[in-house]
Amino acid sequence: MLSLHAPTSPAWLVQIDGHLEELLIDHAHCEKKAAGVAMDLIFAYVDKEDLCRALSEIVREELEHFNMVLDVLKSRGMKFRRLAPSSYGQRLAKLVCKQGPQRAVDRMLVAGLIEARSCERFGMLGEHLAGSDPELADFFSGLFESEARHHSTYVRFAKEFADEAMVHTRLVELAEREAEIIAEGDPFPRMHS
Amino acid sequence: MLSLHAPTSPAWLVQIDGHLEELLIDHAHCEKKAAGVAMDLIFAYVDKEDLCRALSEIVREELEHFNMVLDVLKSRGMKFRRLAPSSYGQRLAKLVCKQGPQRAVDRMLVAGLIEARSCERFGMLGEHLAGSDPELADFFSGLFESEARHHSTYVRFAKEFADEAMVHTRLVELAEREAEIIAEGDPFPRMHS
Repeated sequence: MLSLHAPTSPAWLVQIDGHLEELLIDHAHCEKKAAGVAMDLIFAYVDKEDLCRALSEIVREELEHFNMVLDVLKSRGMKFRRLAPSSYGQRLAKLVCKQGPQRAVDRMLVAGLIEARSCERFGMLGEHLAGSDPELADFFSGLFESEARHHSTYVRFAKEFADEAMVHTRLVELAEREAEIIAEGDPFPRMHS
Repeated sequence: MLSLHAPTSPAWLVQIDGHLEELLIDHAHCEKKAAGVAMDLIFAYVDKEDLCRALSEIVREELEHFNMVLDVLKSRGMKFRRLAPSSYGQRLAKLVCKQGPQRAVDRMLVAGLIEARSCERFGMLGEHLAGSDPELADFFSGLFESEARHHSTYVRFAKEFADEAMVHTRLVELAEREAEIIAEGDPFPRMHS
């Protein structure tokens, strides 16, 4: 699905069951971080005008989602708070090349893979919760499309920094590593555990 | 005006005359930086939910303005590029206390003072350019209201971190320093030179 090398294990749904509050709080933090990543990329590549316009739109949408998750928490009497993240983002960040145009390609592709994985998981949550919590199922399903679109945006703009074949090869490499990292999971129930 | 301790010298208008392209490019960078500052504050004070919602809105508006300035540049055949900033933002950042709740208050108030100064200067540009470049004059005048509103938002939320009297005293202190810094100016024509 999208560029993902392997689907999420059904064990993840078992891990998050009964931990919806923690999952939603982590989700809010993920949306905030996704906005932060897009903003950092605007600062890093400000001379690429079309990229910056697309990234501005991603920041706007991710912050809108952040506020939507805060609304969901509030409507359920859950308190938003700081929460230790999963190691997923940090482990992916370590795969990014430290310099040169390769760094730009890697930053775009890693951001794109996180969007792809989020997209896949929102889809899973939408199906999984349809019977027990249709309101929340609809909420997650509603986020599916934008995450898929952000994935495509990042992969498309990676091609501004390297030729298409190179981007494709690197995307396959990074997607393999992402699949390994997500398969290893995390001890706590998180959006990317 | 707003919380400003002293108005801009008319010498600034003389400095920027004939350098509209440089001024607009700097303006675009300022809008991007204003969005970045609000985003950094979301990360720093994520447990303050109302503040984060207000900051999300500021990020959205500043990025919208960033894109609007890019549109103005494009419509005039001017190329957006990297540009050395004025020393204004860096000098103001040095006034921010390094720790504790005072740091939060200072960050809010400094952000608020930058919005106030931008607001004042957009107003000046609106009047100054009304005869020679009515389109650009309208553009700057149109940004006046949001900058004034952002100023109020930052000052209001500073009061979440300290009592009103303390915030007022500190605002006066910082506004005095801001007025000194802006009066010293900068060698190059910039939005805050």
